[in-house]
Amino acid sequence: MSINGKNLLGNEESSTGEHHFNAVDPASGEQLDITFTEATEEEVDLAVQKAEQAFPVYPKLPNKQRADFLEAIAFELLESGDELIKRCMSETALPQARLNGERIRTVNQLKLFASVIREGSWVNARIDTAQPDRTPVPKPDIRQMQQPLGAVGIFGASNFPLAFSVAGGDTASALAAGCPVVVKAHPLHPGTSELVGRAILKAANDTGMPEGVFSLVQGTSVDVGMAIVTHPLITAIGFTGSFKGGKAIFDAANQRKVPIPVFAEMGSTNPVFILPGAISERGDSIASGLANSVNLGVGQFCTNPGLLISQHSESSEKLVADLAATLSEQSGGTMLSSGIKNSFDSGIAEISETFGVAKLTPGRESSGNTVSGTLFSTDEETFLSNPSLAEEVFGPSSVHVSASSKVKLLEIARSLEGHLTATIHGTEADLEEYAELVVILERKAGRLIFNGYPTGVEVCHSMVHGGPFPATTAPQSTSVGTLAIHRFTRPVCYQDFPHSSLPDELKDENPLGIHRMVDGDWE
Amino acid sequence: MSINGKNLLGNEESSTGEHHFNAVDPASGEQLDITFTEATEEEVDLAVQKAEQAFPVYPKLPNKQRADFLEAIAFELLESGDELIKRCMSETALPQARLNGERIRTVNQLKLFASVIREGSWVNARIDTAQPDRTPVPKPDIRQMQQPLGAVGIFGASNFPLAFSVAGGDTASALAAGCPVVVKAHPLHPGTSELVGRAILKAANDTGMPEGVFSLVQGTSVDVGMAIVTHPLITAIGFTGSFKGGKAIFDAANQRKVPIPVFAEMGSTNPVFILPGAISERGDSIASGLANSVNLGVGQFCTNPGLLISQHSESSEKLVADLAATLSEQSGGTMLSSGIKNSFDSGIAEISETFGVAKLTPGRESSGNTVSGTLFSTDEETFLSNPSLAEEVFGPSSVHVSASSKVKLLEIARSLEGHLTATIHGTEADLEEYAELVVILERKAGRLIFNGYPTGVEVCHSMVHGGPFPATTAPQSTSVGTLAIHRFTRPVCYQDFPHSSLPDELKDENPLGIHRMVDGDWE
Repeated sequence: MSINGKNLLGNEESSTGEHHFNAVDPASGEQLDITFTEATEEEVDLAVQKAEQAFPVYPKLPNKQRADFLEAIAFELLESGDELIKRCMSETALPQARLNGERIRTVNQLKLFASVIREGSWVNARIDTAQPDRTPVPKPDIRQMQQPLGAVGIFGASNFPLAFSVAGGDTASALAAGCPVVVKAHPLHPGTSELVGRAILKAANDTGMPEGVFSLVQGTSVDVGMAIVTHPLITAIGFTGSFKGGKAIFDAANQRKVPIPVFAEMGSTNPVFILPGAISERGDSIASGLANSVNLGVGQFCTNPGLLISQHSESSEKLVADLAATLSEQSGGTMLSSGIKNSFDSGIAEISETFGVAKLTPGRESSGNTVSGTLFSTDEETFLSNPSLAEEVFGPSSVHVSASSKVKLLEIARSLEGHLTATIHGTEADLEEYAELVVILERKAGRLIFNGYPTGVEVCHSMVHGGPFPATTAPQSTSVGTLAIHRFTRPVCYQDFPHSSLPDELKDENPLGIHRMVDGDWE
Repeated sequence: MSINGKNLLGNEESSTGEHHFNAVDPASGEQLDITFTEATEEEVDLAVQKAEQAFPVYPKLPNKQRADFLEAIAFELLESGDELIKRCMSETALPQARLNGERIRTVNQLKLFASVIREGSWVNARIDTAQPDRTPVPKPDIRQMQQPLGAVGIFGASNFPLAFSVAGGDTASALAAGCPVVVKAHPLHPGTSELVGRAILKAANDTGMPEGVFSLVQGTSVDVGMAIVTHPLITAIGFTGSFKGGKAIFDAANQRKVPIPVFAEMGSTNPVFILPGAISERGDSIASGLANSVNLGVGQFCTNPGLLISQHSESSEKLVADLAATLSEQSGGTMLSSGIKNSFDSGIAEISETFGVAKLTPGRESSGNTVSGTLFSTDEETFLSNPSLAEEVFGPSSVHVSASSKVKLLEIARSLEGHLTATIHGTEADLEEYAELVVILERKAGRLIFNGYPTGVEVCHSMVHGGPFPATTAPQSTSVGTLAIHRFTRPVCYQDFPHSSLPDELKDENPLGIHRMVDGDWE
């Protein structure tokens, strides 16, 4: 497949707009070939209209056929071979091994969602059978299942050009739910996006999907995204990115005539509590584990550990010194763009200038968009009186807070806003003594990790990649794992419907053989 | 128990405010005894602070003990005997039989939620076991369940003083989820609210619940409600009432520093499509069924059928004429308040004045707050060009729209906004011919009814009492039935946690014996 810089509106290629842009190689700073054309409002409208036209057809196709579609996307992503990886490397400066791994994750993610819809029980079917003789009023027959919302708008993410973005978790879960998708490509990797978009369209055509089930629009301005968010036929939004971007979309969606749900994952600092027993037992390995986690993907992970909390002790001081030393030794990496690099520099500068905060890693000469891991240290008073220290600096940076006592450590925990993850390093004895910490952190994050590191998000049935605001705008959901499918559905019940008009999922004979609740019992 | 007009802040009674009000008997227009004191901002704050203090304790109590609490509330509601019903009759003008029935429904609703939490599977536990040998990276152990959000604010509803309001569906589901509740009593039935609030507090104390698990605040001004909605420690809102009220709460909640979910059920006109076969087969019985449904509870039901659509034919004309005749014969009823009566009168006047709309029922002399069933008729052009005809007039009123063809009938269906329910009267042959109508209505409502009437909402596992905006602000949820519990929870997952720190729901040995998904399979 080749890239031509056009918007993919269903099977129609279009580039009627006047705004053009090229991708930039973040390593060299040079413009890449292929000029992309920003989608016009009319093009966005056409994409959404096509999605709306596909909607009555697409979710009613047999589960097997829709599962085949998702698996065909996985196949096409593998078929795209080196061409995809090379373009992605040049647009993101991410190393080949990482991108190959990310593609495999994406392929497996699509296959996992395919298996979920092929099996079919995800619709949470519930049946309450009639009791015509009940007094004082007969009990009707009521049957309920999850149904898809309609056309969904999805925003590409800069930091996961394959595992999120065009064919990633948001798209996979929306397509699995039965929703046509209009993706706004991330402008940092438009060519990667187009290649993946073409793979999806080929898969759609090969498996007999209705046109409009997928469209891809390009653009650098916020207008393109807002045209999707405010389009009356869009029924939900998936987003992974900055707080500023996610919050603006959330606000615009709520101010629509008909508000729609926004599933914005806006990142967090992912606090890591290192308890005394763990420090004594294996302070060294925690220091090296944290260094790897801070630096992973040049710190450009939503689950990057940006906040470390421990109680003051000699061994705690040593752990922090070890971590600073390791970060100082490890080589830097190239960030995704000069914009992200500049934001990182500003964030580092702001923290450095905060009274009471010490920078423990040396400033190093950097060339182009290269940065290296940075560690700060502060005390509880400084931290508690400077809320901005708990905010995310996107990149390889972390702030260590030294608590003078258990009471203060718990106070720090209580002061936290919502995060995607919260981690505790401890022994079993630590956990017993700090049982209250678990109770506090359960309210602060979607995922609690014990003796591990927050980076690395397993795609499975029990994953929660979400958390209270400001980590997300939708704490009741996850954007990774099979439960993500429910973001794009709502329950519908059918009262006294004849079997001929009921979905297969709700028929007495259970033709799909799915797991259902009947009269309160799971069968 | 006796009423003293004070706010119930946990176990503390308080009336420090300067604003006072009395309930009014809607039948006589006379003030009732007992003066109520509107809660101050400080009193609301105290109620919420107590709820927050109860939160770490309450959801961690054994399921059995919390189930006992809900059942004890049911017991206390029955114990409140005639005193409760009499006060409620005088505050609402609803007849004794209706209120006795509503109390039984409320009691059964509490018992149903008690059974759900006693059984325990509602938390949707999912376990993915570790694969330490997986390459390239080991798979961690991840376990997930629903956890409660925190303190919840609930607004009493005027039209269901028992089944909603203080101990109704919202409170029962929030308490079942593990959330302490602060209820804003509806000012039309403050005495009923206080009696029910006292019943809940007695049950809480009898079953050893922490203080603050329930509070009740009174007031007529919006300030009291907004003090709850904007309180930083409130984590979600349950509301049943007008579009104006629900939308204002939704907007305020989204503009908070930390936005919170608002589950506002704002009513709808519940379109009823009467297809040709059904009219021929049993037009008479449909007319009489509709008359009863329109007049039920003096039309003050969220599911009142306010919109009837059929294709023009002689038998369709006859059905409409029969319905008008029946409504004209049936005696009127007293509305819940003079304010509601005045709104009804204005709504009727507005429709009456719409060019192209005919009023088919005579204006009747009414005394006090008495109104009688009203039917309008119009054609498709008038309906499609006057969107306000599809809006709810709270009370016993319905608009019949005559479609000139099947195509036009489907166009009317497509033009609809979100509703709580949509009903189809038809034969099996009708359903076959109008299969597209089902597909359209699936997107318009939370509950589809076949050959029935929308009034009467079964409290069961498969009920969806919800629907797309503007019927609700949260189309992905229900406010009636056991699924309502999920409004007040969010998923939390635990990665590599030692068993000693895991909730019982997630331990290997499954001590609660609940239904769980393990490695993708339901056990």
